[in-house]
Amino acid sequence: MPYRPYDIITAKRDGRAHSRDEIAYFITEYTKGGIPDYQVSAWLMACFLNGLNEEETYYLTDAMLHSGSIIDLSSIEKPKVDKHSTGGVGDKVSLILAPAVAANGVAVPMTSGRGLGFSGGTLDKLESIPGFNVNLSEDEFVRVLDEVGYAMIGQTETLAPADKKLYALRDVTGTVENTALITASILSKKIAEGADSVVMDVKSGSGAFMKSLEQSRKLARSLMKTADLLGKRVSCIISSMDQPLGRTVGHSLEVIESVECLRGGGPEDLVDLVTLLGGHMLMHARLVDDVETGREKIRNKLNSGEALERFLHSVRRQAGDVRAIEDTRKLPHARFSEEVSADRDGYVCAINTELIGTAATFIGAGRFKKEDSIDPATGITVLRKIGDRVETGDSLVTLHYNNADGVEKAAALIHEAYETGEKKPVQFQLVHEVLD
Amino acid sequence: MPYRPYDIITAKRDGRAHSRDEIAYFITEYTKGGIPDYQVSAWLMACFLNGLNEEETYYLTDAMLHSGSIIDLSSIEKPKVDKHSTGGVGDKVSLILAPAVAANGVAVPMTSGRGLGFSGGTLDKLESIPGFNVNLSEDEFVRVLDEVGYAMIGQTETLAPADKKLYALRDVTGTVENTALITASILSKKIAEGADSVVMDVKSGSGAFMKSLEQSRKLARSLMKTADLLGKRVSCIISSMDQPLGRTVGHSLEVIESVECLRGGGPEDLVDLVTLLGGHMLMHARLVDDVETGREKIRNKLNSGEALERFLHSVRRQAGDVRAIEDTRKLPHARFSEEVSADRDGYVCAINTELIGTAATFIGAGRFKKEDSIDPATGITVLRKIGDRVETGDSLVTLHYNNADGVEKAAALIHEAYETGEKKPVQFQLVHEVLD
Repeated sequence: MPYRPYDIITAKRDGRAHSRDEIAYFITEYTKGGIPDYQVSAWLMACFLNGLNEEETYYLTDAMLHSGSIIDLSSIEKPKVDKHSTGGVGDKVSLILAPAVAANGVAVPMTSGRGLGFSGGTLDKLESIPGFNVNLSEDEFVRVLDEVGYAMIGQTETLAPADKKLYALRDVTGTVENTALITASILSKKIAEGADSVVMDVKSGSGAFMKSLEQSRKLARSLMKTADLLGKRVSCIISSMDQPLGRTVGHSLEVIESVECLRGGGPEDLVDLVTLLGGHMLMHARLVDDVETGREKIRNKLNSGEALERFLHSVRRQAGDVRAIEDTRKLPHARFSEEVSADRDGYVCAINTELIGTAATFIGAGRFKKEDSIDPATGITVLRKIGDRVETGDSLVTLHYNNADGVEKAAALIHEAYETGEKKPVQFQLVHEVLD
Repeated sequence: MPYRPYDIITAKRDGRAHSRDEIAYFITEYTKGGIPDYQVSAWLMACFLNGLNEEETYYLTDAMLHSGSIIDLSSIEKPKVDKHSTGGVGDKVSLILAPAVAANGVAVPMTSGRGLGFSGGTLDKLESIPGFNVNLSEDEFVRVLDEVGYAMIGQTETLAPADKKLYALRDVTGTVENTALITASILSKKIAEGADSVVMDVKSGSGAFMKSLEQSRKLARSLMKTADLLGKRVSCIISSMDQPLGRTVGHSLEVIESVECLRGGGPEDLVDLVTLLGGHMLMHARLVDDVETGREKIRNKLNSGEALERFLHSVRRQAGDVRAIEDTRKLPHARFSEEVSADRDGYVCAINTELIGTAATFIGAGRFKKEDSIDPATGITVLRKIGDRVETGDSLVTLHYNNADGVEKAAALIHEAYETGEKKPVQFQLVHEVLD
């Protein structure tokens, strides 16, 4: 062994910067099983507290990227641009955006994750469509991407396996929320899936992992700097998670809302974010010169039905039941519903969005632990958002459930989440910043 | 479970102080096997970097102390006072001090450790006496202590088992050198062995774990404060490890030097430290009112042969071969020796003592890893110490060895360790401070 794990741990403990070779050794050995978890978790905590500089973050991302295979998309001639979101509540953007961008002639290779805690996951949402298969082999993924223009899968065993191991360890050792470690985790996976460039939706606010704009900015800069060192283009949109995105939180509920958007409808905030992200993806693909032209092209594909056509193609190609999209009444629906009503008059001036996500989890639409199962039919319809006037007794949200156990707790969380005031608040700002 | 390990890790990561109950839960569960090593090592690194305050150090020590049994010495009526050294090079003090203090009517219950890296261990030195058994049961330990006036054993399975587990983990995760963790480790073991009070020899300098006086002072204060909160008396002598103590480094070599002291001879620095520590132990036992009277009483027992008599009794009682003490030529002797000579004229103005310890390890008198075996016959005779005049070609040390493999490396380390200068250095100061 060229290095001793012990010396790498103490170097970071004492605030020294790692060399490229040290990090490559550490990550390669750990992935192979040559370094025990208890040494790696001590190192992760030292990284969390003493930080990794720009070079170290780059070395780490590169080592994690090369811990597995990188999907070869060279057989696809189209520009290959992906979108990634850092996660939030009611974030169904991928389901609408990927087909709309694909309909514009861009290949969108998309690996997604599952929901945990208050935040939802694209794979879970897709699986509320009966039969939909997110477990494609790499070859099949490339074929679907080529045929449909986009493809959606979960993280495979061979893509950035170091990230899979490290993430599981970070999750139980309190070392998740660190900019450098998050950067390496996101980018190693995204680059392994073969995209040329990525537009990042960096969520910020009460329903995001980064609660403050400052933290989100820090992550955005780190993602861009690291991608740059890896020779990849990344742009970041910092968007607000200070209220749920759109009107639904839950799995089939979000698919239904996505289909509305794909039919040219849907709530304004959701469509705005989809076109903004799509506009930037078309810029990355060099199909447009400015973002407004790109947004227009995305809007056109939503209104023309071409985006919906792509979505149906994708569902068919990934073994999903197309009839459940053509007639969304055939998607899973909850048997019961209950309104949660305002207990005072006023304007909605803030919504603790993490609590909305947690309320959804209590009625079956999320996981507290990785092993938990979810009920795709359950969730929340958000009836009032920031700036809305409510009178006592007006419904704030509708809870959709099959099992009454978590309803009382969920209703209490909804009441806790909604803050009302006498004065109408200033206009809600969906997009904080664009870093390009 | 009243607490989640994850929450305890993140609390310390974020710099929050633990409650007594949190620490008790964490240590008890870990000792039982209910918390995996990878979570504990992340917590240890967070403790290392964010610190534990006085109360937390006390809670931790108390939890580790109560993770196992506490030896009941109530059947012994004499005052029970122990000495503990933080470890160094050539530190054979216990072998001389324990019988000399016991000869003054004090019970000295002594648990000791083994050598690792540059530092030696009392248990290994005792085992160079043929037959000597350091693995007594607790009952047998109490009986020997009662009969002989002192007894020497290794850490048993039942004394502070939390420390045993934590220490093994700290050793491989870079979390050893932290004042609070060291304090809890030392005190939990020392109090578990049943002593009423302890005189600590806190080593400081190039041959100690604490290289600076400031670090040593910090540890001394932490030991005294924590002991006070536990209702135990601890005094600290901060003594220099900027040169080896006495004239020998190695196992049977140090036993021979100890026997010289027990016959009223021996090098001045060693005898000085023994009488100073012994004087304080007699003060702890309330047998004298001032340290000078105590020192005199220790000196008397060395000169009268009564301390040697106790030592022989102890060797006999712990199954050692008394003839090897009566005639130390019967102790293991190395087959070969080699002088390492000065390559320039001057005064010895500094000795990197860690390098001397490492040189001894290279010729068999130490362990690089816990699993290594040692050769009790090997070691170093230190012929020149700080302030001595040397001419080119004069011997600095004698290496005693059985296997020539490490000799060249050891000789190079000796040359590196000795620093000579034109001017005679200021008088070497053996004792820096006494904190009482």
